Amino acid sequence: MYNKGISKAVINRLPRYHRYLGILLDQGVIRISSAELSRQMNVTASQIRQDLNLFGGFGQQGYGYNVAYLYEEIGKILGLDKTYRLIMIGAGRLARAIGSYVGFQKRGFQVEAFFDRDPEKHLHRPDNDIMIYPLEEMETYLKNHQIDIAVIAIPADAARKIIPILDKGGVKGIWNFARTDLDVPDYMTVQSVHLSESLMQLSYKINH
Amino acid sequence: MYNKGISKAVINRLPRYHRYLGILLDQGVIRISSAELSRQMNVTASQIRQDLNLFGGFGQQGYGYNVAYLYEEIGKILGLDKTYRLIMIGAGRLARAIGSYVGFQKRGFQVEAFFDRDPEKHLHRPDNDIMIYPLEEMETYLKNHQIDIAVIAIPADAARKIIPILDKGGVKGIWNFARTDLDVPDYMTVQSVHLSESLMQLSYKINH
Repeated sequence: MYNKGISKAVINRLPRYHRYLGILLDQGVIRISSAELSRQMNVTASQIRQDLNLFGGFGQQGYGYNVAYLYEEIGKILGLDKTYRLIMIGAGRLARAIGSYVGFQKRGFQVEAFFDRDPEKHLHRPDNDIMIYPLEEMETYLKNHQIDIAVIAIPADAARKIIPILDKGGVKGIWNFARTDLDVPDYMTVQSVHLSESLMQLSYKINH
Repeated sequence: MYNKGISKAVINRLPRYHRYLGILLDQGVIRISSAELSRQMNVTASQIRQDLNLFGGFGQQGYGYNVAYLYEEIGKILGLDKTYRLIMIGAGRLARAIGSYVGFQKRGFQVEAFFDRDPEKHLHRPDNDIMIYPLEEMETYLKNHQIDIAVIAIPADAARKIIPILDKGGVKGIWNFARTDLDVPDYMTVQSVHLSESLMQLSYKINH
């Protein structure tokens, strides 16, 4: 509904608006001007007005923004008013950390199962009693469970190989932590967190 | 040396060039044309030439790029030819996962110590025998050890409070996993990995 003409840069900024508005909400702030929000977020006020106008404004001239309303509306744009079922592919340290991080956020992202190639790991269960299944069972699992998001935290080669299984299994989105780009069909979507690239950007900045 | 006029977008692309060149190197590829690199990376060939020209070119008309040389040179630009000493602030699941991830990468990023507020965690040691110290000891630790990078994986409020200690302790760069922006002096640098914002971007894309 909102996707026409919304640039990637704006979409990348929306979660940050949501975060700041959440903090204001926690602080009991009821209304905020674009000027004040601009000061806190270190973005120009005109940028804020321009971004929010793309979604119909939300602001009233001279009154500023209603914090709770804006927080909720941006949440809706981001799809945070819905519930998502996730599986974690990989059950190593990073996968478990991400899995408990997601659970901790309690934003409608629900981790349903872990899958891992390593049989030894299947003996353990993460604290929150989510089962770890062998990776070979994932295809059957996806036939019997509706899963929205797969979180990939396995090596690059293995990550690329499982895409067809996720596709067939009706997974809509991939949160990718593997050190690779992933080709997916048009009706699927990938969001990657490239940790080593982020660390390299930091070392670049330290040196220049 | 290279920082004049290099845009953030280019800097963000360099680690990806480095990753692809590393794969080609592993595959034994000696030379690659910008056209072929373009096809593999899904970037236009003119973009590649333009990006690499900023650093002096590296390519020879009609011969393509020498993979090993380009890999090494981009590595140098990214500061990967140097060694960095890191401390992990936080010793929770995410901090430990990131800590072992960094160690695993073996790219000259060396985790020296963990710091955590929670005394219970100090009883355990991560697998690789890196000590976990109480957070209060960090200031003294930084007086006695030269640390280049602090990895922050603690809650937002606590994260903001420790910046002055890191500053006084001579830390140059911060790899931030806390759910907050961090204000640092000009001579320090921050690279943030906002996991929950990344997940929100994914849920946005799934819905639009």
